[in-house]
Amino acid sequence: MSIIVQKFGGSSVADAAKVMNVASRVVDTYKAGNSVVVVVSAQGDTTDDLIDKAKEINPNASKREMDMLLSSGEQISIALLAMAIEKLGCPVISLTGWQAGFKTNSNYSNARIDKIDTERLLAEIDQKKIVIVAGFQGVNRYDDITTLGRGGSDTSAVAIASAIHADKCEIYTDVDGVYTADPRIVKGAKKLNEITYDEMLELASLGANVLHNRSVEMAKKYNTALEVKSSFEKIDGTVVQEVIKMEKMLIRGVARDNDVASISIVGLPDTPGIAFKVFSLLSKKSINVDVILQSIGRENKKDISFTVQKAHLEEAIAILEGAKETLEFETIKHREDLSKVSIVGAGMVNNPGVAAKMFEALYNAGINIHMISTSEIKVSVLINVEKAEKAVQIVHEAFFGA
Amino acid sequence: MSIIVQKFGGSSVADAAKVMNVASRVVDTYKAGNSVVVVVSAQGDTTDDLIDKAKEINPNASKREMDMLLSSGEQISIALLAMAIEKLGCPVISLTGWQAGFKTNSNYSNARIDKIDTERLLAEIDQKKIVIVAGFQGVNRYDDITTLGRGGSDTSAVAIASAIHADKCEIYTDVDGVYTADPRIVKGAKKLNEITYDEMLELASLGANVLHNRSVEMAKKYNTALEVKSSFEKIDGTVVQEVIKMEKMLIRGVARDNDVASISIVGLPDTPGIAFKVFSLLSKKSINVDVILQSIGRENKKDISFTVQKAHLEEAIAILEGAKETLEFETIKHREDLSKVSIVGAGMVNNPGVAAKMFEALYNAGINIHMISTSEIKVSVLINVEKAEKAVQIVHEAFFGA
Repeated sequence: MSIIVQKFGGSSVADAAKVMNVASRVVDTYKAGNSVVVVVSAQGDTTDDLIDKAKEINPNASKREMDMLLSSGEQISIALLAMAIEKLGCPVISLTGWQAGFKTNSNYSNARIDKIDTERLLAEIDQKKIVIVAGFQGVNRYDDITTLGRGGSDTSAVAIASAIHADKCEIYTDVDGVYTADPRIVKGAKKLNEITYDEMLELASLGANVLHNRSVEMAKKYNTALEVKSSFEKIDGTVVQEVIKMEKMLIRGVARDNDVASISIVGLPDTPGIAFKVFSLLSKKSINVDVILQSIGRENKKDISFTVQKAHLEEAIAILEGAKETLEFETIKHREDLSKVSIVGAGMVNNPGVAAKMFEALYNAGINIHMISTSEIKVSVLINVEKAEKAVQIVHEAFFGA
Repeated sequence: MSIIVQKFGGSSVADAAKVMNVASRVVDTYKAGNSVVVVVSAQGDTTDDLIDKAKEINPNASKREMDMLLSSGEQISIALLAMAIEKLGCPVISLTGWQAGFKTNSNYSNARIDKIDTERLLAEIDQKKIVIVAGFQGVNRYDDITTLGRGGSDTSAVAIASAIHADKCEIYTDVDGVYTADPRIVKGAKKLNEITYDEMLELASLGANVLHNRSVEMAKKYNTALEVKSSFEKIDGTVVQEVIKMEKMLIRGVARDNDVASISIVGLPDTPGIAFKVFSLLSKKSINVDVILQSIGRENKKDISFTVQKAHLEEAIAILEGAKETLEFETIKHREDLSKVSIVGAGMVNNPGVAAKMFEALYNAGINIHMISTSEIKVSVLINVEKAEKAVQIVHEAFFGA
């Protein structure tokens, strides 16, 4: 007998028919002889509707009260899913985040899971019940309700799977797995049977939008096998795990991320430690910096360019302008008309020709590269946003064929 | 400094504007130098909407899961009310039933409050916070969420007021107090400044629909002063307490209850204990019996008539028919076209003419009385339902003038 954790997102339980569909999938897994824990998000637009209600009353409501409000959404969906499973005649119990033992820190709206007290969960599993757990939520040390922020339900599912040593954590989504590129852009995109945690992390952070990094990082940390599957079709998905059977594939996928803005600090003094000063200023304010380019300018001056998320652009510029006297730069430029296109694959570290192949494909298509960044398992380029779809298509074709 | 508990029902917080209205009333009380605990119900139709969602999925859902579902409604309204009070600049915190320490038995959907662990509540009050508590809910010994059933939020408010020894428990409703009769029926109905617990209990059970009996019984038990007030107008309401200043009023009010059905068991043997047998059968099934009439029939036979709530009529008849051989009656008759009209007042025990005055008024109006029941502080008559409004009007006129 295996223990399987299944996570269903808000669109999978958006209405009564979809709740019944999820219930029947859960019951199938249970009747096949497995113990099943199900993590579920709030139904469809519930969270957005609750946010609208709050904004109408107080657009600056405290995060504590927002978490109190929003956590009701998952409470509704766990109860409805439990009722649907009752209808199918299986023993079931729903548990809120606090009932399921989710202990978090007090960082309301973006709390970190400190631990899961699994006593209740395991007791219900021992009684052969299907256990439905509210994702996205927990309680802090004062028993106040917290929410986990973006990707919270995925993280809840992986955290439970890790805590109770589940055999697998299945993440059900709108898509049926992880593809070599976004199938909406690239017709020939292929579904991957397997992918490593590290590859998945790069793809997620690069805009593949299938799994959130927090959940993949946690799965990697506890070596918990993930499977990304379709909520609607009963077919195999993509398994995410530490080591995968070697496939003759240089790269795992091509991703695109339009949420990038570039900042160039022009005319910095060419002295040691200047880059450190710049980036420590930004990291103190929790602004993540990505692709970095440093170039020598004229007269012992240098320029530093880097990218940030668009939401952080304004704050980053303000921080740098505020330190103009210390940093002694001449001017700051920025642009928002960029896209980051990346190839990801654990195989590329041993194949130095991979980056060249990508650059050649872009050159042949007449696409200009503004900045380049590489790691052991990825190559990213910044290009004009209007060329991004085309770039994904031709790079994908170069590696995977048309 | 006083501690005041204020309870607002679902219609008082039905939309953003009404939530802000409640918030400003709460803040007024707080700024006048009082400690304030607010108990609030789910917004407007929220509970009904949730019930509809559940029924669409499983009309026979377990009561545990229904309680999990429905308790989300108050969680939404406490968060929204707290946000509204934050907007008005006062310190505030919302607490769910379990956070506020409500411990109940495990009778899902109709749980009884066993105790309130007031530690958290009192700590928040000590920190000068306005405390918003979700009414209608608690947790059982397994930390599973329970709801308190009809009148639950009133009961929550009185329970808190009793537990923390509040100076007053204010129940805000659509009406501005307790009247000598339903103002929608009787134009000359007068608002009462004061009423005793016992009088209020009789009026509530007789269909006055202002306070639920459970809350009044609890207030009487702990001698907690209640005040029924308007959510919308800032005027004095009606105070409910143990002893009231003597007013020269024989009766406190006239009430009507259309939720009555009569059952007559015809041709029972005239032997000792037969009434006991009949009513113990019904009480075993939790069917409450009200107005009882026993009459001697022909040939050592007797008839017993009594009333039940309409919802219990079918089951009561089935129980009695099932015991036909034991009870040895001839036949059962029933009718549903009745109404119970009652006068209530602690003064009537010393004024034997009160009942006669009521009967005379009904006789003068040509209204036929089917059954009569009396207690120390009330007189009830069963009459045809189509005469009920008229009866309330003429009885009210007889005691209070036109």
